[in-house]
Amino acid sequence: MTEEFIARLRAQGSRYHDQHPFHRRMDAGELTREELQRWVANRFYYQKCIPLKDAAIMANCDEVAVRREWVQRILDHDGTVEGTGGIESWLRLGEALGVSRDELVSERRVLPAVRYAVDAYVNFARSKPWVEAVASSLTELFGPAAIRVRLEALERHYPWIDRAGLEYFRARLVQAPRDAQYALDLTVARCRTREQQDAAVAALRFKTEVLWAQLDAIERGDTQPAGALT
Amino acid sequence: MTEEFIARLRAQGSRYHDQHPFHRRMDAGELTREELQRWVANRFYYQKCIPLKDAAIMANCDEVAVRREWVQRILDHDGTVEGTGGIESWLRLGEALGVSRDELVSERRVLPAVRYAVDAYVNFARSKPWVEAVASSLTELFGPAAIRVRLEALERHYPWIDRAGLEYFRARLVQAPRDAQYALDLTVARCRTREQQDAAVAALRFKTEVLWAQLDAIERGDTQPAGALT
Repeated sequence: MTEEFIARLRAQGSRYHDQHPFHRRMDAGELTREELQRWVANRFYYQKCIPLKDAAIMANCDEVAVRREWVQRILDHDGTVEGTGGIESWLRLGEALGVSRDELVSERRVLPAVRYAVDAYVNFARSKPWVEAVASSLTELFGPAAIRVRLEALERHYPWIDRAGLEYFRARLVQAPRDAQYALDLTVARCRTREQQDAAVAALRFKTEVLWAQLDAIERGDTQPAGALT
Repeated sequence: MTEEFIARLRAQGSRYHDQHPFHRRMDAGELTREELQRWVANRFYYQKCIPLKDAAIMANCDEVAVRREWVQRILDHDGTVEGTGGIESWLRLGEALGVSRDELVSERRVLPAVRYAVDAYVNFARSKPWVEAVASSLTELFGPAAIRVRLEALERHYPWIDRAGLEYFRARLVQAPRDAQYALDLTVARCRTREQQDAAVAALRFKTEVLWAQLDAIERGDTQPAGALT
């Protein structure tokens, strides 16, 4: 039963956003500079909200041992001093792609649908049982393979990108497998009934949708007429 | 205006639970062993929920720099490896007072009114703007002075308590002033309007009530007839 459960979780990988046309075009070297910039500026909103999601999981989890492990994600992402951590690395990625730090931080380029998707993820973590929120993080099972392809593609097809700016992905190659293994073990240990396992699979499926919806919006771009300034 | 605001916050110290008859009797050496045991078992529920409150604050705070400071509270309280941290120290305090670790962890002795008060605090942190939740933590301004009195009283009046079990309070003498200063600076920096300052003072007042209500319930003890087992 455990094997079948793990297989059901892993099967959600077919819905992971590396299969999205936008990421396929990125990997094939077909994105314009403008598209890459739109991507990095919008994904920043996802990156900046990840610690909120992880803190929400901790705020709902009354087990010290689990929190002791989970807090590492916040430390990795926020960093422990200024100039460190995953969010900072993403800001450097933005600069390498020609989008300034101020532009990213301002969130001016964040599309409404990207914001809604990310906020739905944070709200999921806030409102659902923490084990389901942990299960939703299991997209990290699929991350490293996709990142390896993406890293190579960015280096090969987009020579104008400063390679130092790609550090975010290199760090994730180390962090994501460790995080994913812990989250998988925890999910398997805590989801023993069919009902719990169904909820975990549904949570992971939901997360693949959150990532996919962001790329749909990023691919489409801003389609609203440039109207009145607020 | 800042000075007046700080004075208003500090004035809430007159409502701090060191003024509660139960703590006054503790400090005067008048509590029975049973009363001290009831206190330690009930306060454990507050202790175990503190990291949930701090994680909730982080889950609502979209500023990396603030989260980097605040996470230290979770690390202090949960510890980084098994056998460390404030919750563990409280379990040892329980043992020093003759209440076993299992008894504390079971929450069997936690009175309903204590649970409601603590849960109200966690829910406050989950649902209110994070600056107000930060302000509510400012009871730590009053903690060290009270802990100094309490430590001396426990050592002097209750010689049957193993002094090694009092480590929780010794650690708080170092942590609380540091935490309180950061939280005070942050509260002062972020609450500039009268409305914001009123909300901060109300949050701190709310917190003094949460602590006080716990002692009211602990002092009263279990008053319900020993009825049907569930």
